[in-house]
Amino acid sequence: MFVRNAWYVAAFVHECSERPLARTILGEPVVLFRTPSGPCVALQDRCCHRFAPLSMGDVEADGIRCRYHGMKFSPQGACIEIPGQSVIPPKMCVQSFPLVERHGLLWIWMGEAQRADPELIVDVHWNDDPAWPTARGYIHYKANYQLIADNLLDFSHLTYVHRTTLANAAFPNSHPQITPFERGIRLVREIRDCEASPLHAMAGRFEGKVDFWNRQVWWLPSVFENWAGSVPTGAEGAPHERPGGLHLRHFSLLTPETEKTSHYFWVQPCQFPHGDNSVIEQVGQGIAKAFAEDNWIIEAQQKSWEACPPEIQPLSVRNDAALGRVRFMINELLKQEQTPAPLHSAA
Amino acid sequence: MFVRNAWYVAAFVHECSERPLARTILGEPVVLFRTPSGPCVALQDRCCHRFAPLSMGDVEADGIRCRYHGMKFSPQGACIEIPGQSVIPPKMCVQSFPLVERHGLLWIWMGEAQRADPELIVDVHWNDDPAWPTARGYIHYKANYQLIADNLLDFSHLTYVHRTTLANAAFPNSHPQITPFERGIRLVREIRDCEASPLHAMAGRFEGKVDFWNRQVWWLPSVFENWAGSVPTGAEGAPHERPGGLHLRHFSLLTPETEKTSHYFWVQPCQFPHGDNSVIEQVGQGIAKAFAEDNWIIEAQQKSWEACPPEIQPLSVRNDAALGRVRFMINELLKQEQTPAPLHSAA
Amino acid sequence: MFVRNAWYVAAFVHECSERPLARTILGEPVVLFRTPSGPCVALQDRCCHRFAPLSMGDVEADGIRCRYHGMKFSPQGACIEIPGQSVIPPKMCVQSFPLVERHGLLWIWMGEAQRADPELIVDVHWNDDPAWPTARGYIHYKANYQLIADNLLDFSHLTYVHRTTLANAAFPNSHPQITPFERGIRLVREIRDCEASPLHAMAGRFEGKVDFWNRQVWWLPSVFENWAGSVPTGAEGAPHERPGGLHLRHFSLLTPETEKTSHYFWVQPCQFPHGDNSVIEQVGQGIAKAFAEDNWIIEAQQKSWEACPPEIQPLSVRNDAALGRVRFMINELLKQEQTPAPLHSAA
Repeated sequence: MFVRNAWYVAAFVHECSERPLARTILGEPVVLFRTPSGPCVALQDRCCHRFAPLSMGDVEADGIRCRYHGMKFSPQGACIEIPGQSVIPPKMCVQSFPLVERHGLLWIWMGEAQRADPELIVDVHWNDDPAWPTARGYIHYKANYQLIADNLLDFSHLTYVHRTTLANAAFPNSHPQITPFERGIRLVREIRDCEASPLHAMAGRFEGKVDFWNRQVWWLPSVFENWAGSVPTGAEGAPHERPGGLHLRHFSLLTPETEKTSHYFWVQPCQFPHGDNSVIEQVGQGIAKAFAEDNWIIEAQQKSWEACPPEIQPLSVRNDAALGRVRFMINELLKQEQTPAPLHSAA
Repeated sequence: MFVRNAWYVAAFVHECSERPLARTILGEPVVLFRTPSGPCVALQDRCCHRFAPLSMGDVEADGIRCRYHGMKFSPQGACIEIPGQSVIPPKMCVQSFPLVERHGLLWIWMGEAQRADPELIVDVHWNDDPAWPTARGYIHYKANYQLIADNLLDFSHLTYVHRTTLANAAFPNSHPQITPFERGIRLVREIRDCEASPLHAMAGRFEGKVDFWNRQVWWLPSVFENWAGSVPTGAEGAPHERPGGLHLRHFSLLTPETEKTSHYFWVQPCQFPHGDNSVIEQVGQGIAKAFAEDNWIIEAQQKSWEACPPEIQPLSVRNDAALGRVRFMINELLKQEQTPAPLHSAA
Repeated sequence: MFVRNAWYVAAFVHECSERPLARTILGEPVVLFRTPSGPCVALQDRCCHRFAPLSMGDVEADGIRCRYHGMKFSPQGACIEIPGQSVIPPKMCVQSFPLVERHGLLWIWMGEAQRADPELIVDVHWNDDPAWPTARGYIHYKANYQLIADNLLDFSHLTYVHRTTLANAAFPNSHPQITPFERGIRLVREIRDCEASPLHAMAGRFEGKVDFWNRQVWWLPSVFENWAGSVPTGAEGAPHERPGGLHLRHFSLLTPETEKTSHYFWVQPCQFPHGDNSVIEQVGQGIAKAFAEDNWIIEAQQKSWEACPPEIQPLSVRNDAALGRVRFMINELLKQEQTPAPLHSAA
């Protein structure tokens, strides 16, 4: 079960072209494509005639043609040609999903189309700001997206999973300040006068101790914004406001594929105190390595979870506060969708 | 669910030897073999003792011996030896299936044996007539046989699926004349003064336009006879009766393996207007290529169909007339088998 | 469904080290490890916190640390450290399973711990007796352990499955004497004045005929002891008591992994009449080859069994006497575990 009335990242913009892209999102087959002159669009990837995947077809000037019997559909999903007959019944169409291109990402709305307000799309503008050299990546996960969310919402795992990349011995004891708001939760954490993690030390070229910060937002249901950084220790003021710091404007953007698999998009815009932007390549490699470590343990956790008898429940610890809160909020959203509020209430 | 009271092709005759052949047919494990002096036979591929597959055993002069504990069964399925004991209980036997060798094919009857009338076997005599050079092939399909039947019953797909092999731009608009009869339907189609398809042009060495014909029969439940051909355009009379034509006496012989997989046998006897029978090799390659194109889209269609919620039904178009008719007739046969008529009615 | 109140082999002792070993036993995930100074232990392989497998973690001086969030558990399964918090709730623990190291094998008890009496462990002392050169092996089986038990309990299959290794033409007709006792059954078989099997001929360097014996015990639920041997024919007295014989003290130790898969451990201690112990290597290779033959047919039998409609039952023959008896006894044990007897009966 997934929250449907929400924007999810369907793809990076550069993945969508005149060559159709098949992607399963929230359990539904979707085809992404653009006509030579039009915007990116998302249609159900199943011809309404005999269910062949439209993604096996060809994009033409005015739409996409099914490869099986040649039915053609407009970018809006209306059938505009049926070979061998002149009348096209109105019901002959495939579902179209709202799709918005913004800051290098394609955001899709799988719920009620009339609720698809682009104002709700999380601001990821750093991702196409030339002032922010950016690393990017995609990971296909054999795990439910909530296990990935749990991971991102409890940084105590950095010490154990990411020994050689993101580890900082102080994480388990540096409990973040958690502030819920309507659309998610905010987490703020500072660790003063600490050893920089291997990644921060490399990216910032720090030689001594640093003051470290995380200013994170979990945007429901599945976008993680993590403004992290380090600055040489010793000066006054909030670390993230001081000059000379390393700034990482990270986003992890999770999109459920099925109940047991997920799409994981990430972007990592950076600003380096030394001004040598070529470091971004190493940052990208470091993130990819660290995320492979997460993938390794989370996919094992998924299998373990599936094999576990349903009467056994996980036992919570203090560091589960944030993930517990987010799981609760997602359950509330799911309940709301089971009994949806009217769009316009009667007076 | 399958029509059981029907003849299905179990194998090409050349596949059956003293080395047992295991093949699942209509969901049941079958072993095909012949003793040195006997005809091909079909037994249940499961020893009645401890269920080891008999196909792992050895054929002897008078039967097949299970490889596990050495029980031997006659070609009729009766147990004729139990190592370690002298008495053989009569119930110790495996099911035998009626099997008829005819014109290079082995036909099996998986239903009530007393209804297995060899007169019902479709005539495929061109397959072993020296006057008809013949190409043959087998494809294992990860799809229900009815999706393959749908494909064969709507040639509008030739234009889109078989662009470089069987395509003829006129197909979607050349609706065949459909005539049901007790054992299936007949389809007749003519396209006059058209470009020959790549395969016909090659096989017939046509340089100008042709008159094309299909004279097809769908034999319930799953044999497709397609007498197709081309002849240079311009002369009088029915194209298939004029001299100088290319004649293809094609049969597609479908045998359900499981609900989601099928055996697809095909034979392609030909007569060439130029008399150069060596062309048969290229015809065989062309058919194999075209059928790989069908396989590619039909297996994708099967997955899409499985993933589709059951409340969503495919929407029909005019070119679905024949496949809709055959699906209806198969459903009628299935209903009849649920409430079978008596073999001999009481006076 | 498995008999739980029983000792099963979890591993060879040499498989258990400070590097955790994951193994599924009776459907449950188990991790085997030893601390630098402690004995081998077996814990549930699922951290009670977020279900990550403990086998991905690290063994420390006093326990095993989960690789995900760093919780540490003692060898007894008690949580002894939760990073980020000082209080450890008592319920924070993972199940520990009784584990006994004996004669080179690790025996695990998956049932009620208070019934885990080490006196019930089958005596396999030949396995670490220097007077008995020993070959050993492990096979992972894609089959229920009872199909393997059936195999071991009916040696008539040797003639058909093991033609080039263990075959002896007399097996199907040499019905063993079967004697049930509380913990299983005993089987005694003698074949006088016969050709030695290829394995015995090689291992014993016999040139003429031999007297062969099997003195077997099936220890419920799944340990097979087979004291087999051959001695030159012609002398008086019981073959196994005469000098000059080849003695094979074989044990097949079956441990259910899941309903459809099994662990198969075997040990083959030998005494050779010629005193050349280097022959043990060839014996090990011969056993491995023969057991691969069993694996080949039993995994096929498992698939056939699964595909068989439940209303069809296997038909028994005389040589099924022993396996039928053991299946009956196992069913009785399963029934007892459904309605367990009290540990201490009231007066």
